[in-house]
Amino acid sequence: MPRYKLTLEYDGSPFVGWQKQDNGPSVQAALEAAIEKFCGERPATAGAGRTDAGVHALAQVAHFDLAREWPAATVMNALNFHLRPDPIAVLEAEIAPADFHARLSATRRHYLYRILNRRAPPAIERDRVWAVETPLDAAAMREAAQALVGHHDFTTFRAAICQAKSPEKTLDALDVSRAGEEIRIVARARSFLHRQVRNMVGTLKLVGEGKWTSADVARALAARERAAGGPTAPACGLYLTRVDY
Amino acid sequence: MPRYKLTLEYDGSPFVGWQKQDNGPSVQAALEAAIEKFCGERPATAGAGRTDAGVHALAQVAHFDLAREWPAATVMNALNFHLRPDPIAVLEAEIAPADFHARLSATRRHYLYRILNRRAPPAIERDRVWAVETPLDAAAMREAAQALVGHHDFTTFRAAICQAKSPEKTLDALDVSRAGEEIRIVARARSFLHRQVRNMVGTLKLVGEGKWTSADVARALAARERAAGGPTAPACGLYLTRVDY
Repeated sequence: MPRYKLTLEYDGSPFVGWQKQDNGPSVQAALEAAIEKFCGERPATAGAGRTDAGVHALAQVAHFDLAREWPAATVMNALNFHLRPDPIAVLEAEIAPADFHARLSATRRHYLYRILNRRAPPAIERDRVWAVETPLDAAAMREAAQALVGHHDFTTFRAAICQAKSPEKTLDALDVSRAGEEIRIVARARSFLHRQVRNMVGTLKLVGEGKWTSADVARALAARERAAGGPTAPACGLYLTRVDY
Repeated sequence: MPRYKLTLEYDGSPFVGWQKQDNGPSVQAALEAAIEKFCGERPATAGAGRTDAGVHALAQVAHFDLAREWPAATVMNALNFHLRPDPIAVLEAEIAPADFHARLSATRRHYLYRILNRRAPPAIERDRVWAVETPLDAAAMREAAQALVGHHDFTTFRAAICQAKSPEKTLDALDVSRAGEEIRIVARARSFLHRQVRNMVGTLKLVGEGKWTSADVARALAARERAAGGPTAPACGLYLTRVDY
């Protein structure tokens, strides 16, 4: 039974998230429906990252098995055809080894968070960025972010519904840079706690506004309780950009 | 009577274009409605470029007069409030000299055309780019574009409905560059004929595909008839990016 690996781009706005849920359309359900339309089979699919409602992906990775072996290009073209009009695109399809697992085999996940920092609301990039009107000090955010890099107990940045066994994670990078009106925050780690990136970004925004210092961020991390951290940044600014294996 | 100058960003997808028309919502009508909600006046507005249905703007310029003088920041904030939920944002509002005219005073207009050149359809950038699956040779397009730069009779690239008095225009620049999967075409001129940019882009695409040579483009220009040019590129890839005065 061949295993297929897909790389997916999607606009998360109309979805309840990657994962199948009862309360609305998910990327996973749309993908499984497209697979069934293509070949009549309805395999279970697994994704590298369980992106929340409204979170986007430039390169989510998923896998599934089919009874029949199809050329990878056929799978890609057929799924793109059947996924229309949903804003989901298959960027790449490959035959993967039988032991490949989109979630369990991943060695590193890359996320991007985009803040549009200007007085005017977004028109072109609506639902694609977090619109923050207050001028943010990106250099201060960059410095404060370093307090979070490394191996830590990230309970302060963990959603109550997080299912991870341990709150300890190793954050490989948390880079903040400004390009004109946009502040871009790049996070890299083997894995993240639920809402960890959005909770870290919401905390860094307090630093950017001058309300918090780097020391406040370090203290919040050390407190190991969600209430010590800043608010959760909105989903629409977050992108899963890459998964390494 | 103070004159106000606005710089506007908009997503052209839901509009019939900049200009007020009977057949659907326009950017201009939305702006005039927002002005009336703000201050009770309903002045005529003029825009620098009459963007077509589906064409976007990063910096359209418009002007109008009001009986009362308001602080520019008040105008900007109030219009942004009243424009919601339309995807139109006022990036800047200024008090302009009484003889300033958004269209007639403009000395140069800048457009960007975005082609997403990959096999997969766009998900995140849907309605924001022209999706072209065939691999395009951007270097060949760049070279062929030079045949169009300068002072010419652009009848070949002029829409039948164009109202300009003369088909002669001076094209200051037509630059083609590739950044990864995206081909970006930048056009600059004092003014353009109706659909001129989209018709030039549709012609350059033939060059990118290897169907036309630079010499074919020069011949099409010299023919001075629309039928000699390539097809019109779709509206969704075009952005009015800047207007100089």
